Amino acid sequence: MKEYRIKPGTRLALTEFDPNDTGSYQKNDEGKAKAKAATAELIAALDQLQERLYANGSRALLIVLQGMDTSGKDGTIRSVMTGVNPQGCTVVSFKAPSTEELSRDFLWRVHQKVPAKGQIGIFNRSHYEDVLITRVHGWISDKEAARRFGQIREFEELLVEQGTVIVKFFLHISKDEQKARLQSRIRDPDKRWKWSSGDLEERKLWDAYMAAFEEVIAATSTERAPWYIVPANRKWYRNLVVAELVVQALAAMKLSRPPAPKGVNFDRLNIV
Amino acid sequence: MKEYRIKPGTRLALTEFDPNDTGSYQKNDEGKAKAKAATAELIAALDQLQERLYANGSRALLIVLQGMDTSGKDGTIRSVMTGVNPQGCTVVSFKAPSTEELSRDFLWRVHQKVPAKGQIGIFNRSHYEDVLITRVHGWISDKEAARRFGQIREFEELLVEQGTVIVKFFLHISKDEQKARLQSRIRDPDKRWKWSSGDLEERKLWDAYMAAFEEVIAATSTERAPWYIVPANRKWYRNLVVAELVVQALAAMKLSRPPAPKGVNFDRLNIV
Repeated sequence: MKEYRIKPGTRLALTEFDPNDTGSYQKNDEGKAKAKAATAELIAALDQLQERLYANGSRALLIVLQGMDTSGKDGTIRSVMTGVNPQGCTVVSFKAPSTEELSRDFLWRVHQKVPAKGQIGIFNRSHYEDVLITRVHGWISDKEAARRFGQIREFEELLVEQGTVIVKFFLHISKDEQKARLQSRIRDPDKRWKWSSGDLEERKLWDAYMAAFEEVIAATSTERAPWYIVPANRKWYRNLVVAELVVQALAAMKLSRPPAPKGVNFDRLNIV
Repeated sequence: MKEYRIKPGTRLALTEFDPNDTGSYQKNDEGKAKAKAATAELIAALDQLQERLYANGSRALLIVLQGMDTSGKDGTIRSVMTGVNPQGCTVVSFKAPSTEELSRDFLWRVHQKVPAKGQIGIFNRSHYEDVLITRVHGWISDKEAARRFGQIREFEELLVEQGTVIVKFFLHISKDEQKARLQSRIRDPDKRWKWSSGDLEERKLWDAYMAAFEEVIAATSTERAPWYIVPANRKWYRNLVVAELVVQALAAMKLSRPPAPKGVNFDRLNIV
């Protein structure tokens, strides 16, 4: 999974990352079945690790999901996180900011939604929108963007120093794959409700988005809050990669079972 | 399940409800296996209904869980709601109120946490603590309690009129069952971290709690925000009852697939 991790200070070219990549799995039904079996095992491990995180109550995990429309942010959450106790998992979907939010700095609303200790928090879109869509549409200058990169690094560093582990995923699909997914939303009456004409407008800005992603990912992938480029054309491989990296992040916390409360003589407790 | 629903204006005696009740299921391994199979089917249905609720985005479901310590509030959430997409499910655990919360009315912090449209919200403890623990310890007068009953009814009526369906569960265990569960926390080193000496103090007030529950449930079970007394000595039956009633509540919303956006000519859309 190391190859998907972006080292700090890298100059990033997304064209060097294959959205069709399936790692060591074959690009056929057999590879898919094997990957799905491996993902199921990871999800079972995730359930156990999440329980430990919750019981321990001293740390948190923040997962940031970004990607173009149809890249599978919702689908990843559904596939990887369904099976986790919702008492220990909070999903926040960031939409267009409200007037109240716009009247504060861009991190104000985000800070309010960071996961509590003991929780897995998932940001479905995030503060990164404030250096992506804003940038592509020219709502902020290059100078302001550079300032925000620094502010984001420092904000995330604060969270990390105070006990939150951060992993950030860019779900990487090809432009052709997006076309296919949008077309299936058009063709399938069951999916038409998901259609937003805005998606088509953003698609026209594909190259500008790729350039913006390259710059922001390179500028904000740090040792302690890394970005991963997840090959996402094949949903089964995307799920496997995200599940694997989330399990790794939780396992690396090496959380122990919380200790029994002090000062209680358990051998002499008598319940009437 | 109707027998567990408390009719408005009932005079309630919890002693008339058997915490060992298993309905039409035998109190043996066979009954347990059958109930577990039925629960698994309900959970699968719940997953589908939740997706519809989320996609539709016009209604919400609020589940209130109350019960004595060890009655299984956490366990019910884990057993029944794990398997639901966390993107559509929010669990709120209400702890002792903060100074900021205490300086507002008791519903202030609760109102902030009601589920958004499209969401299932679960209150693990709730505003009902403000007429339970406060009452048993004599922190509020009978007159203030009666006033709060009315305020709770009106608050919940507001939520219902604005599109939220409310179901409230009292997880009913016997005093002996609580003793057994507390003892297992003492004996099992893996469970000792859950031990709180406060639980033992509250246990001494068991009868006062039962009286407080009887009064508040009778006063706040309404046609549109009903209370259910869930037999909870046997976890497998408790899970079945809660799953069944949650599925019923969602199914009764009769939510349709959301319509395709208007003004889009899907036959002529061309994606470049």
